[in-house]
Amino acid sequence: MTLPDRSREDGPSIVPVSLGDRSYSILIGAGLLGSAGTYADLPRAGACVIVSNETVAPLFVEALRRALGSLYERIHVVLLPDGEAHKDWPTLQRIFDSMLAEGCDRSTVVFALGGGVIGDIAGFAAACYMRGVPCVQIPTTLLAQVDSSVGGKTAINHPLGKNMIGAFHQPRKVIVDVATLQSLPERELRAGIAEVIKYGAVWDDAFLDWIESHMAQLLSRQTSALIQVVKRSCEIKAGVVGADEREGGLRAILNFGHTFGHAIETGLGYGTWLHGEAVGCGMVMAADLSLRLGFIDSEHVARLTRVIRSAGLPTQPPALGTERYLGLMRADKKAVAGHMRFVLLDRPGHAAVHAVAAPQVIETLERFAADA
Amino acid sequence: MTLPDRSREDGPSIVPVSLGDRSYSILIGAGLLGSAGTYADLPRAGACVIVSNETVAPLFVEALRRALGSLYERIHVVLLPDGEAHKDWPTLQRIFDSMLAEGCDRSTVVFALGGGVIGDIAGFAAACYMRGVPCVQIPTTLLAQVDSSVGGKTAINHPLGKNMIGAFHQPRKVIVDVATLQSLPERELRAGIAEVIKYGAVWDDAFLDWIESHMAQLLSRQTSALIQVVKRSCEIKAGVVGADEREGGLRAILNFGHTFGHAIETGLGYGTWLHGEAVGCGMVMAADLSLRLGFIDSEHVARLTRVIRSAGLPTQPPALGTERYLGLMRADKKAVAGHMRFVLLDRPGHAAVHAVAAPQVIETLERFAADA
Repeated sequence: MTLPDRSREDGPSIVPVSLGDRSYSILIGAGLLGSAGTYADLPRAGACVIVSNETVAPLFVEALRRALGSLYERIHVVLLPDGEAHKDWPTLQRIFDSMLAEGCDRSTVVFALGGGVIGDIAGFAAACYMRGVPCVQIPTTLLAQVDSSVGGKTAINHPLGKNMIGAFHQPRKVIVDVATLQSLPERELRAGIAEVIKYGAVWDDAFLDWIESHMAQLLSRQTSALIQVVKRSCEIKAGVVGADEREGGLRAILNFGHTFGHAIETGLGYGTWLHGEAVGCGMVMAADLSLRLGFIDSEHVARLTRVIRSAGLPTQPPALGTERYLGLMRADKKAVAGHMRFVLLDRPGHAAVHAVAAPQVIETLERFAADA
Repeated sequence: MTLPDRSREDGPSIVPVSLGDRSYSILIGAGLLGSAGTYADLPRAGACVIVSNETVAPLFVEALRRALGSLYERIHVVLLPDGEAHKDWPTLQRIFDSMLAEGCDRSTVVFALGGGVIGDIAGFAAACYMRGVPCVQIPTTLLAQVDSSVGGKTAINHPLGKNMIGAFHQPRKVIVDVATLQSLPERELRAGIAEVIKYGAVWDDAFLDWIESHMAQLLSRQTSALIQVVKRSCEIKAGVVGADEREGGLRAILNFGHTFGHAIETGLGYGTWLHGEAVGCGMVMAADLSLRLGFIDSEHVARLTRVIRSAGLPTQPPALGTERYLGLMRADKKAVAGHMRFVLLDRPGHAAVHAVAAPQVIETLERFAADA
């Protein structure tokens, strides 16, 4: 893979997502958020709604509001509390309440301004409000920029499971302004890099090399490195989603590290570990399981673990106890008829879904001293 | 239109709904519900869920459970309270809670057994559970059989409006067993006939004639008349939905009578008038408005009113006050940028959506002494 090292693009990079009449573009650049031109081709309407949270809004909402001012007569802002703990029904209901109180109709455009939680909940609100209104994703975390804002998955959590209630609702456009990453807390930047590493692991071994050799530039938030890494990640995600929108098969490989990761998140309580941290550690565990099944060698496990560690991500899971891990993983959305299903590495840069029997999963859990 | 007057079909009638990879069939007959063969071509899964209510379940749930017994290892029944007042989030949440507690996965099939409320809420649950699981509609009211079970519209109500939160989620199959209508309360049968009359009014003037001349057989629940009327209604609905799944244009004509009707329902509080009663009266009002705009003559208004009255449906709206009606109709989902939109009759058997200015709407409201 060649990733040209231009320090500045002439215009934004555009990654198309091809989904028939639901196709859209991902715009990637620095300084896009506050530019009216970014939004010029969006559907017109009397009103739009900016959904954001109390952390992100003070940083970007005024710039967005100014940029949208010439396009929408009425701009409503719905501010939600920050955090995964609020990705729930009462918070979703606040969006519906505001939209109905403000007289929003079927043409109203919803802008999701924030990280993955905002994208998921605002996207789900757009999916359900009057059975669907247009949505534009403006992700402001690296994790949302490379993953959750692309592909149309929206959801809220249920007390019995993460992302259990949701919809596929493709956005009209995704606007990735890497300038928003300059204010991102260090820990969230590192968590976002976990998903970037995932793309290398499951799809593009050369990209994994590139990530490893550019980790310093990524961690120091060099604009050109951020643009390159977001662009390549989005290209991979767009390709996979375009081939399998509703996760009938291929798309599931993007859940590499997520079965262990979700168990960690749910087991500790949402928000104790960041999603990307749990996925980072989950990838190390899934790589170990891939090794145990004879798909990859220990050298590749060591390399992947090294890259994850170099991003400052945890590689040792919390000691929840083997039984608790198994119970959580059997309740995973990917589980079918009680069988645990894992995305495993077949070879460097390639992954597939496998049903795995409990004894082998237990070996991996014990290897990491995950027992309580 | 010719409607052969066979008293018994050899097998069920099949009306196809053509929606590409979301196509499905409507099966219409007497005695289908309890026959295992009815379900033979449905997706297999470890579990299925029957969603019903406390009124319908005692009548049909055991027959359905027996018929499904050879197809699904686990059959869970979720019983909801009866009535439009419960088409809300807490009731929807009960379905999610049960499905998660029972370990339902992405392959679980949801059977909606009941009237329009059950179809809407169970359909919406299926649309959102793990971002979508298969749904089969088994409508047990005439209204649901000819209207809400076909076309994929699902929703719950919001305190500020009916059906405001929902999704388009096409069923895998619709099973219409007209034998279920034998136990339907008289008032609900009549309410269902309102939607049947609607199809004649907006699409097929000869069908309107047929309905008028067969009203006695319909009201006495003659099986062959019921099969004929459901079949022709479903054919019309399937044709309209196939041409315009997401209500971009044509499908909106099926809302004839609904703008006034929803205002009546919301204004009185859900459940005071049945949906079909409100729609029946709303059609009389919409016909009057069509006349005022010069689209149809007074003779056609009188004929439509006569048919609606012969079904035992109300033709005089409640006196909510003109201002209240206008406020309710401006909040209707069909309203765009505050303009009221009505489905109006252009000529017998034909309808289209029109934006109408307040003064003409007020004339209609005053004609019916709808002022408080």
